[in-house]
Amino acid sequence: MAGAIEFVDGGTITTPQGFMAGATYAGLKTFAEDKLDLGILFSETPCNTAGVFTTSAIRSATVTVNRERLAQGIPLRGLIVNAGIANTCVGEQGYIDAVEMTGIAAGKTGVRPEEVLVCSTGVIGVELPMALIRDGVEQIELRGAGGSDMARAIMTTDTRPKEVAVSFEIDEHLVRLGGIAKGSGMIHPNMATMLSFLTTDAAVERGFLQRALSQVADETYNMLTVDGDSSTNDTVLVMANGAAHNHEITEGTLAAEAFVEALRQVCTHLTRELARDGEGATHLIIVEVAGAADTADARKAAKTVATSSLIKSAVYGADPNWGRLMMALGRSGAAAEEEKVDLFINGVCIMEAGKPIPFHRDAVVALMKRPEVTFRLQLNLGEGDATAWGCDLTEEYVIINSAYTT
Amino acid sequence: MAGAIEFVDGGTITTPQGFMAGATYAGLKTFAEDKLDLGILFSETPCNTAGVFTTSAIRSATVTVNRERLAQGIPLRGLIVNAGIANTCVGEQGYIDAVEMTGIAAGKTGVRPEEVLVCSTGVIGVELPMALIRDGVEQIELRGAGGSDMARAIMTTDTRPKEVAVSFEIDEHLVRLGGIAKGSGMIHPNMATMLSFLTTDAAVERGFLQRALSQVADETYNMLTVDGDSSTNDTVLVMANGAAHNHEITEGTLAAEAFVEALRQVCTHLTRELARDGEGATHLIIVEVAGAADTADARKAAKTVATSSLIKSAVYGADPNWGRLMMALGRSGAAAEEEKVDLFINGVCIMEAGKPIPFHRDAVVALMKRPEVTFRLQLNLGEGDATAWGCDLTEEYVIINSAYTT
Repeated sequence: MAGAIEFVDGGTITTPQGFMAGATYAGLKTFAEDKLDLGILFSETPCNTAGVFTTSAIRSATVTVNRERLAQGIPLRGLIVNAGIANTCVGEQGYIDAVEMTGIAAGKTGVRPEEVLVCSTGVIGVELPMALIRDGVEQIELRGAGGSDMARAIMTTDTRPKEVAVSFEIDEHLVRLGGIAKGSGMIHPNMATMLSFLTTDAAVERGFLQRALSQVADETYNMLTVDGDSSTNDTVLVMANGAAHNHEITEGTLAAEAFVEALRQVCTHLTRELARDGEGATHLIIVEVAGAADTADARKAAKTVATSSLIKSAVYGADPNWGRLMMALGRSGAAAEEEKVDLFINGVCIMEAGKPIPFHRDAVVALMKRPEVTFRLQLNLGEGDATAWGCDLTEEYVIINSAYTT
Repeated sequence: MAGAIEFVDGGTITTPQGFMAGATYAGLKTFAEDKLDLGILFSETPCNTAGVFTTSAIRSATVTVNRERLAQGIPLRGLIVNAGIANTCVGEQGYIDAVEMTGIAAGKTGVRPEEVLVCSTGVIGVELPMALIRDGVEQIELRGAGGSDMARAIMTTDTRPKEVAVSFEIDEHLVRLGGIAKGSGMIHPNMATMLSFLTTDAAVERGFLQRALSQVADETYNMLTVDGDSSTNDTVLVMANGAAHNHEITEGTLAAEAFVEALRQVCTHLTRELARDGEGATHLIIVEVAGAADTADARKAAKTVATSSLIKSAVYGADPNWGRLMMALGRSGAAAEEEKVDLFINGVCIMEAGKPIPFHRDAVVALMKRPEVTFRLQLNLGEGDATAWGCDLTEEYVIINSAYTT
């Protein structure tokens, strides 16, 4: 029933049928070269929509508004997003401005404000210049090919946009799933990365859509770390408009399995791209933990290794200082027995059953100079597996973050 | 009954009566300018001894040996320690070598091996060259003024030794408490900093000594973070030899209160020095959290702020990017309500009741260029207070740690 998943060349958030997007420079983003900073995503038809959000106790007003709108349970039509200012920690004005943003976008697209979501990313503690946003929205031209502009408009310290789309068959209907994401610092999501928006023209039942997103976000965005810091604005949204005219996908069907797998591939792709584009990063780090006592332990161990500043620094220097892997494993809280652990760096076994194996140092250093470094930790205790993604720590990260507002 | 606590000029671990120490260069430490790398601490009389150790699942064999020796409950006489090699992740040989080190030190000082503790710090996964250690111990000259040599011998990437001593009166007896510590990377202790050794000539009951050390370590070393990474070797030991001839200090007395306060002052001093000398650090960061719902929340919030790479980078750049404080508070897991939070940077109020206060930016930047930066977060929810210590994140940290073994 479900065909193979194929990546679409040049795919983005408007690759699924019936979605349009557009972006403009409103004047909010003063620090980046790419000046697009205000975007709108719009669906020609109502969408079942699901979201996952930051678990931080200090949240952007946009998160509050989006949670309320999703709780209504009504189909939604669109999303307005700005980069440059986070609309966080500005008192009651934050909520007022977030609601007004949905109203402006609704006015432009001819829908009701409560059918529109809103996201912001950027500096905390600064009020949104609403006059600029009102003017900016007037400039936006919504187009079926506008997804890539939207991907650029949400960038802050990102060096490149992240966008992808796949297509696959469900019940002999070709359906598409596209996504964009942003975020290269303050990335250690607890519920979501800073911002990622997904669209599909598949018809998907709303409850299943939420469960599928929550599950896949746990395996992808929630296993991503750039610097251990979580944002106040982390949001992942998926909108399903049904334009592909398939039977609505419900839980426990083959179609549901196919949809979850497509969602996993799209989110994994975006997660890897977010890690690779971490602030100052020169290497993508992939941490595979196998044979942990359970999945929770595997996740803890993988994420602790990917988060370690010492390991991130060692990858930057292509230094096979594997003792730091054991250090991070030990402190992760996961059950571990030294005498059972096998370690691999890019496929080369460095430690077997807790004992270091003499390895050809120059060869491993050369392997670690590749743009992707994979650490594999086999704990040989149980069936728990997990993968985490991160990036190396470089002087450039420090330079970027020591003078972001100045 | 208890007099004022006074810091002793030039005080160190041999300032208390009846302690001797010495150190030599055995050839283990190849990467540091200060070449002392093997030391012995010895008490002329038996000592009640207490310790706290790393909670990591991957531990140095030295930690195992020391736990066993402390569990015996017998008075101890000394400690042998090396820098350069951690004696961790080397299979069964690690335990054999750790025990042999205590035997060598015992032979030199004329006590039994089970009366001696052992610590190692340095690279993980390399076996100790025991021949060098045997030769080295022969060269060590134990002296009443040898504490400072011992402080140097435990340094790895530290740029300077950390040592301190205080004196105070108990029951008309002058007693002394001294300490040394090392560690400037892989510092985020869960039970203890990498290595800190404390001595006192006060007579202290063993059970109370352990409880006092555990309590004070929680408030000091366990609130220290340099890079979020915990070592496999973290150890704090305190030895009390009673040479001051006071009545043995027991729980619930005025003397006990005085002793705990002296211990707190010595450990706070060493904790601050460890933070200040964090790898590549240019600023000491002090995070005070007041009015949290409870102490556990205050500790979580303070430590999360002190650990944040974004905040550490901002301090390096003297950038009053206070939004990052709110971000870290939000993700710390501590209860927080945005509209109740007050923030201060070096005494200047930046946010009051959740609203940013316009501040003179240049003045705050100038304040942040001072060598100590204090962030104060008043949550106004309850009675929970805590302080954490850390340091800024600089390019130098990355340079140090991207090529430590190479």
